Amino acid sequence: MSENNGADAQPVTTGPLPSSSKVYRTTESGGRVPFRRIGLSNGEHLDVYDTSGPYTEDDADIDVHRGLEPIRAKWLDRPHRTQLAWAKSGAITPEMEFVALREGVPAELVRDEVARGRAVIPANRCHPESEPMIIGKKFLVKVNANIGNSAVTSSAAEEVEKMVWAIRWGADTVMDLSTGKRISQTRERILRNSPVPVGTVPIYQALEKVGGDPARLSWEVYRDTVLEQCEQGVDYMTVHAGVLLRYVPLTANRVTGIVSRGGSIMAAWCLAHHEENFLYTHFSELCEILRDYDVTFSLGDGLRPGSIADANDEAQFAELETLGELTRIAREHDVQVMVEGPGHVPLHQIPENVRREEELCGEAPFYTLGPLTTDIAPAYDHITSAIGAAAIAQAGTAMLCYVTPKEHLGLPNRDDVKTGVITYKIAAHAADLAKGHPRAQERDDALSRARFEFRWNDQFDLSLDPDTARSYHDETLPAEPAKTAHFCSMCGPKFCSMKITQDVREFAEEHGLTTVAAIEAGMRQKAAEFTSSGGRIHLPLNQ
Amino acid sequence: MSENNGADAQPVTTGPLPSSSKVYRTTESGGRVPFRRIGLSNGEHLDVYDTSGPYTEDDADIDVHRGLEPIRAKWLDRPHRTQLAWAKSGAITPEMEFVALREGVPAELVRDEVARGRAVIPANRCHPESEPMIIGKKFLVKVNANIGNSAVTSSAAEEVEKMVWAIRWGADTVMDLSTGKRISQTRERILRNSPVPVGTVPIYQALEKVGGDPARLSWEVYRDTVLEQCEQGVDYMTVHAGVLLRYVPLTANRVTGIVSRGGSIMAAWCLAHHEENFLYTHFSELCEILRDYDVTFSLGDGLRPGSIADANDEAQFAELETLGELTRIAREHDVQVMVEGPGHVPLHQIPENVRREEELCGEAPFYTLGPLTTDIAPAYDHITSAIGAAAIAQAGTAMLCYVTPKEHLGLPNRDDVKTGVITYKIAAHAADLAKGHPRAQERDDALSRARFEFRWNDQFDLSLDPDTARSYHDETLPAEPAKTAHFCSMCGPKFCSMKITQDVREFAEEHGLTTVAAIEAGMRQKAAEFTSSGGRIHLPLNQ
Repeated sequence: MSENNGADAQPVTTGPLPSSSKVYRTTESGGRVPFRRIGLSNGEHLDVYDTSGPYTEDDADIDVHRGLEPIRAKWLDRPHRTQLAWAKSGAITPEMEFVALREGVPAELVRDEVARGRAVIPANRCHPESEPMIIGKKFLVKVNANIGNSAVTSSAAEEVEKMVWAIRWGADTVMDLSTGKRISQTRERILRNSPVPVGTVPIYQALEKVGGDPARLSWEVYRDTVLEQCEQGVDYMTVHAGVLLRYVPLTANRVTGIVSRGGSIMAAWCLAHHEENFLYTHFSELCEILRDYDVTFSLGDGLRPGSIADANDEAQFAELETLGELTRIAREHDVQVMVEGPGHVPLHQIPENVRREEELCGEAPFYTLGPLTTDIAPAYDHITSAIGAAAIAQAGTAMLCYVTPKEHLGLPNRDDVKTGVITYKIAAHAADLAKGHPRAQERDDALSRARFEFRWNDQFDLSLDPDTARSYHDETLPAEPAKTAHFCSMCGPKFCSMKITQDVREFAEEHGLTTVAAIEAGMRQKAAEFTSSGGRIHLPLNQ
Repeated sequence: MSENNGADAQPVTTGPLPSSSKVYRTTESGGRVPFRRIGLSNGEHLDVYDTSGPYTEDDADIDVHRGLEPIRAKWLDRPHRTQLAWAKSGAITPEMEFVALREGVPAELVRDEVARGRAVIPANRCHPESEPMIIGKKFLVKVNANIGNSAVTSSAAEEVEKMVWAIRWGADTVMDLSTGKRISQTRERILRNSPVPVGTVPIYQALEKVGGDPARLSWEVYRDTVLEQCEQGVDYMTVHAGVLLRYVPLTANRVTGIVSRGGSIMAAWCLAHHEENFLYTHFSELCEILRDYDVTFSLGDGLRPGSIADANDEAQFAELETLGELTRIAREHDVQVMVEGPGHVPLHQIPENVRREEELCGEAPFYTLGPLTTDIAPAYDHITSAIGAAAIAQAGTAMLCYVTPKEHLGLPNRDDVKTGVITYKIAAHAADLAKGHPRAQERDDALSRARFEFRWNDQFDLSLDPDTARSYHDETLPAEPAKTAHFCSMCGPKFCSMKITQDVREFAEEHGLTTVAAIEAGMRQKAAEFTSSGGRIHLPLNQ
C-alpha cells in the first residue's frame, strides 16, 4: 500500500491488498468486470467481488486531476433512455451484462428485476467513470459510505481520499453529504475519481445557496441545483418529497422529533410558508430531469425515527405511504427508484418496516440507515446498528447505509470510515449467507479451511481486514515461525482444539475408527490394545 | 477512576463511573441490592442494574488478599439444598428475593421459573461473596466474560484485574478458563474477590494434572478436580458429558472438526480408550457432588460448529439430544442446569438452535457463544458474533458468552475485554428491548431525551461507555461550551436536524400549528402573513 501523490500533492491510497491482484473478466459488450484475486499459500486462489476500482491495481496510474478512464463512454452513444426503460422494452444493456457477470447471475435476471423496479442500476450518463452496480434484494447486499465535509471540519482533498479509502475496504457506493464551502468542487473531484455510484442530497447545496435559511428555499433554487448535479454525474439523489405539511404535527410528541437533516429542513419550509412541500408538488418535473440523465431517486425518509421510542410511529408510516405514491409516479416516468428507511428501530419492529415498504412501494429496493437497535451506546453505534442492519438486510433490504463509531458525536475520520465500512460489510455478508446467495459462502469456507489447516497468512489474507487480523495475531506471537504454528496465544499449544482434532483424525484413520458403524461394531479389543501400551497413547498432544 | 494497590502492589481498578454513585435497596431478608445511580444535569437521575460490585463505590475499601465481604454468609446457616430444591418445595430463598428486587419482578415469578428449570441462580454455598444473579429467558439477558491465563501469556494478578475490569463494564458472570500454571491460586483469588458468579471448565485443570495428555485422564482425576473447585466456590461448571464415542466420527467430514477445547479433549480420550466418555458414564455421581454445593451445570457443547459450513449439522444436534437426557438426570438430582450453544451459525439457522434446545432440554437456560454469523472477519468477531448474539437472545437465549476482537487470533488484553463486554451488553440490551423487558427502555429514553435537549454530558454519562463517547465528541469540538452547544461536528450548526426541529416546534406552537386538524383547517392566511414579512421567517436557523 503506498500513497500516490497527485499534482496538488493530494495523497490517494493505492496498491493492492495483501496477497491480492486485480483480474478482469470481459463481457460481450467489452465491459471489463473487476475482481480481486486472493492468492493462497497452497497454490489456490479465490476471486472476490471488488469495488475498489483501479486504485488497487498493481501499478495504479492515478492522477486525481485527470480522473479515471471513462469506461462507459463507448456505450453512451445511444438514445437517452433509463436502464428501467431499456429493461421494460426487453433490452439487456451493457450495464446489465456488466452487473450480471459481476454478481454471477444471468443477465436476463438482471433485466427482469430492473424492469419490475425491484432492482436499480444507478448510472448517470454523465458519470462514465463508474463501474455498473446493481442494488436489489435478489443481489448481493450493498453498503453505502457517507463522506463529505461539514462547516466545522475537513477539506475537499480529504473527501476524495475518504472515497478511495472507503471503496478500498468494500463500500459499494458513496454519498457526498458535504454541507460546507466548495460543495460543487468537492463533488466534481469525487465524481471524476469514483468507480462506484455517487449519491447526494441536493437540498444541502440548495440551502447553502440561500444562506442557510430553510424558509428562503424555493423550487427554482432546488431545481437548478439538481440540474447542476445531474450534469456533474451524480448517480442517485435523496429527495425528501414525502415530508408533507400535514405530517409535521405528527412528530410533535416524539422523543427526538425529526432527525433527518433534509426532513427537518423541509418541515421548517412547509410550516414557515404553510404550503405543501415543493418537492412533492413539483415531483413530476423532477422526474423529467432525472430521467434525462438516468439519475435514480432515493426517496428520503425525512420522518424516520431517531430513537427507539419513536420507531414505527404514525409519522414514519404516513410518510412511507406517500413514498409509495411517489414511487409509482417516478416509475411512470421510467425513473429508477430506491426508498430510504430508518434509523432507530428495536429488533422486533424491524421486519414490519420491510413488509410495509415492499407493500406500499412496489418492492422498490429498500435502503436503510442501520437501523440502530438501541440508543444507549454512543461511540459504538456502528455495532448497535450493524445488528439491525443484518436483520433488516436478511428481511430484504437491498442496501445499507453505514454508521461509524462517531455517529451522534462528531465527523468520522479515516479510521472511523474504515471501521464503519468493514462493520457493514459484515452485516451485509451475514445477510447474503442467510439469503442463500449462491457464492456468498465460498469465502467463509476458504477462510475456515485455512484456519483449520493453520495456514495463518491465508486466514489473514482472506479476511475483510488482513492488516488488522495479522497485527492482532502478532501482538502476542510475532515471530515468523508462528505463522505456521499449530496454535496461537488464545489457547496455547496444549489446548488448541483444532490441533487436537487433527491428531484425533489421524489416530482414527490409522485405527479404522472413522465411521459410526465401525464404532458400533464394538471394537473393544482395539481399545484394550491401545490402553495396554503403558497408558501412553500415540496422540502427540503433550508437546 | 483510580488504581487501588493491594498488599502485593496488584492494581485493581476502583471508583465510580462518571456522574454515578452506588445505591442499595434492601430486601426483607436483609439483602443489599446494588444499583448504579446516574445523576443528570437537570436534577433527575436514573438507577440502572449494576454488577460491578463494591469496586465502584465512592470510597471503595478493597484488599484483594482479604477479599470481599461474605454477604451471603448469614443466609447459609440452613440445610444444604439447592435453589432448585427450595423452589420446588415452594420456598422463596433470600437469593430469590435478591434477584427479584434486582430485576424489578415479583419474587414468586423467580421461584416459579427456577422450579420449572427455566431459570438458574448459580450460587455455590462456598462463594458467599457473590451477589445473587438469575439467568433465564424471562429475565434480563446476561453476558459472560471469559478470563484466564494460557500457557503462553498473562499472570494470576492480571486475571483478577480482568475480572474487576469486566464487571466494571457490565459483565454479569465471569468464567476463569486458565490453562497454565497456578490454576488453583488464580481461581482462589478471583473467587474471593468476585461479586458475580464464577464459572470454570474443570477438564482444563484435570488435563494439567495428567501432564496435558488427554488419554491419561480418568474419572478419578476429574472428580477430585471438581471437588476442589466446588470447595473453592465455583458457581457453575462446563461439563462436556455429551461428547459420546459414537458422535466423534460424525465430525470427520467437517470443515473445522471439533473446536471446543473440552470437546476435543474428551473426543481424544474416547477414541484412545475406545470407551464411552467418563463424564457421561459417571454423570449421576457428578450430580451428587454438584448438588452438595449447589453448583450449576453448564452442559458444554463440545461438538458445536466452528464454521458456517458446519452449522446445525448431525454431530451438533446429536450431542444436543444427549444434553437433553443429561438435563433430565440433573434435575432429578435437584441440580440446576444451563445448556451451552454455538458457535458459528448463519442468521437463518439461528432460531432452530433455540427451538431444538428448548424442546430437547426442557427449556433449560440456553447459554451461547455468539454465534458468529460469518467466518470472514477475524479481528472483528466481536461484531460478527454480536449480530448472532442479539438474534439468538431475541429468540430466547438467556446468557451470551462474549467474544473479543482477538477471537481466533490471540489472548484478549484489557482493551479487548472492555470492547467485548460492551459489545455484548449492546446485543443483550437489544434483545431485552425486543423481548419487551418492562424497564429496559428507560435508559434508551433517558439518553434520547438528553440527546434531543443537547445535554451532552448526560448523553455521555447515560451511555454504556461514557469515557469513549466523551472523547470521541471532544476530538473535534473539545471546548467546554461545546458541551451545551446545539450541534456537534457531525452536521455542524446549520444542519443539525434536532436544532431545526426544536425551532420548528417553537414556531408551530407560537402559531397554533401543532395538530393535523389545525393544519387541515386551511390556515393559508397565516402563511401569507409569515411570508410577507420580507421573506425572512423567524426561525433562528441561520446562525
